[in-house]
Amino acid sequence: TDIFDPTEHPHRRFNPLIGEWVLVSPHRAKRPWQGQVEPAAEEVRPAYDESCYLCAGNTRINGEVNEQYQGTYVFDNDFAALKEDTPVAATDDPLFKMQTEQGKSRVICFSDDHSKTLPQLSVTKLQKVVKTWQQQCQELGQTFQSVQVFENKGAMMGCSNPHPHGQIWAQTQLPTLVSKKQNAQLEYWQTNQSNLLLDYVAREIEAKERVVVSNDDWVVVVPYWAAWPFETLLLPRFNIQRMTDLTTMQTLSLADILKQITTRYDNLFQCSFPYSMGWHGAPYDGDAHPEWTLHASFLPPLLRSATVKKFMVGYEMMAEAQRDLTAEQAAERLRNVSATHYKES
Amino acid sequence: TDIFDPTEHPHRRFNPLIGEWVLVSPHRAKRPWQGQVEPAAEEVRPAYDESCYLCAGNTRINGEVNEQYQGTYVFDNDFAALKEDTPVAATDDPLFKMQTEQGKSRVICFSDDHSKTLPQLSVTKLQKVVKTWQQQCQELGQTFQSVQVFENKGAMMGCSNPHPHGQIWAQTQLPTLVSKKQNAQLEYWQTNQSNLLLDYVAREIEAKERVVVSNDDWVVVVPYWAAWPFETLLLPRFNIQRMTDLTTMQTLSLADILKQITTRYDNLFQCSFPYSMGWHGAPYDGDAHPEWTLHASFLPPLLRSATVKKFMVGYEMMAEAQRDLTAEQAAERLRNVSATHYKES
Ligand SMILES: O=P(O)(O)O[C@H]1O[C@H](CO)[C@@H](O)[C@H](O)[C@H]1O
Ligand SMILES: O=P(O)(O)O[C@H]1O[C@H](CO)[C@@H](O)[C@H](O)[C@H]1O
Repeated sequence: TDIFDPTEHPHRRFNPLIGEWVLVSPHRAKRPWQGQVEPAAEEVRPAYDESCYLCAGNTRINGEVNEQYQGTYVFDNDFAALKEDTPVAATDDPLFKMQTEQGKSRVICFSDDHSKTLPQLSVTKLQKVVKTWQQQCQELGQTFQSVQVFENKGAMMGCSNPHPHGQIWAQTQLPTLVSKKQNAQLEYWQTNQSNLLLDYVAREIEAKERVVVSNDDWVVVVPYWAAWPFETLLLPRFNIQRMTDLTTMQTLSLADILKQITTRYDNLFQCSFPYSMGWHGAPYDGDAHPEWTLHASFLPPLLRSATVKKFMVGYEMMAEAQRDLTAEQAAERLRNVSATHYKES
Repeated sequence: TDIFDPTEHPHRRFNPLIGEWVLVSPHRAKRPWQGQVEPAAEEVRPAYDESCYLCAGNTRINGEVNEQYQGTYVFDNDFAALKEDTPVAATDDPLFKMQTEQGKSRVICFSDDHSKTLPQLSVTKLQKVVKTWQQQCQELGQTFQSVQVFENKGAMMGCSNPHPHGQIWAQTQLPTLVSKKQNAQLEYWQTNQSNLLLDYVAREIEAKERVVVSNDDWVVVVPYWAAWPFETLLLPRFNIQRMTDLTTMQTLSLADILKQITTRYDNLFQCSFPYSMGWHGAPYDGDAHPEWTLHASFLPPLLRSATVKKFMVGYEMMAEAQRDLTAEQAAERLRNVSATHYKES
């Protein structure tokens, strides 16, 4: 056949947020897997674990004692990758260019309950998580241009403690990926006099085929340019630049959509679905940044089952991201699972 | 202290080949690891395995039978990510941009001996591997602008078969990363009237501190901007744009340096060291490309031991690559291990 079929023919899709391509090879999904199988994650945990360094009242590795907190709890990372008091230095040699970086790394416990993950928290408790992110951005945004909120979930994603938690790394300069998004959104704004992601979300709502879940304020899509098998993009249906601009009602609707998408993820392979998740919004630099739209990305590694992941190696590291099923196929599978968490039904 | 100490203070280093930064947080190396531990790789294998789909004379999953080959053996990937007969199609919508891709994916067995990995092959046999790469580039470069030679080694790197082998994915368009290197080298050439990587290798030979191994033709360094803990860059000491331009003597000296660096890798944690390795050179587009230098990169995931790797997750996926030890510290550790393979001594 001479007619292009996206579910059959290798093609590249362009990610306009970072200006990079992804190779889509949908027929590869038929290949049998004989490679590494990941250990299944421990599923049953107590509400309190005395050996956990994130549980309330416990002593951490460096001797500090956690507060008897309820709900969320934030503290400075004991092994911070970024520090405030780093001396300022830089070289301008084109082949050996460096600059020191000042920042702060924090840990945020999502719940005092050691046994719960995000989809297992009530919407009210999830709203507390959102409000804590908001407060942190408010506080750290005073000093640092970039406030990176993220979560590594699951041992497969380098997370060393199953207690529900995320991290916040704030810093004075814009990291590489955020810079790319800054440039791409600004260029689109200047070219089209409109906002890249607001235009995009309107098109996706109309097209429907990549939409996974939505409510009045938010939509989750498998983006047209998704690299990871079940990657999603969480987008607002309204104009907003930063986490700090969310109204209380919007923090509630955000809690609702977070519960919806993380529930569907867990239901896909009936496991606590590993991923890295993170938020991007306009820099805290005092400018308005109308070109920006606040958004979150979920980057989950699983491909075939709870124990077989996609490896972004060889070709992907040396050439270009590559995926085996189309974004539309991934969205359909996520739409087809139950909206109720498998542990609750 | 107010004086910048690269082994103590968080700083960012710039990768001039792709225009991206890496965050270096050397004090993070002190952090204890309580996270995922990888299964140790199976170390003893027979020279022939009847269940291996790469061993000579065996039948593959799709029913094809491997030749009774000796040395190297090349065949088309049974589950190719790229195909020659893909129909041409493209859209130019800025938010939903795609183009089909034509190409070929091949597998290259490095040896008929199932039990051997690159450092365990003789220099003569390694030279045969180099010559096979060369022939493949020669042949595929007639049709395809980009010929990506790479190896995924170890189950940790998504390799599903321990038989020593690599891959070649050739395609009509330049993949994302190769495009970046094309642009960066060309810009440097236009600005400085000299070749980026030749200038760089001269500076590294002089500085010594990031050099791991070398011979008359080649140098392996932990690049100043390395992202993975023990990442290395294999550079020629002479002007060369493409794999196809290597003289027979240079294929021999390349075989020697490949044996040197892969031996040191295995010796670092006394294991068959996993990595993705790949070659980049000028596009096969008929132009001279004096701005290019042929080079290979080794991207190995291990950080602390044979079973604890670096996770490029959360912050790294959302913001910027991050490393815990400096390039200079990594180079020193690789220099300090034996030059003889631990299985031979
Ligand atoms: O081609 P293989 O060995 O089946 O697969 C491996 O290498 C490919 C190219 O780097 C990757 O896309 C796959 O994720 C990986 O498992
Ligand atoms: O900060 P943690 O949880 O100790 O470490 C984890 O997240 C970090 C930030 O994404 C990564 O740099 C580490 O590789 C990962 O293991």
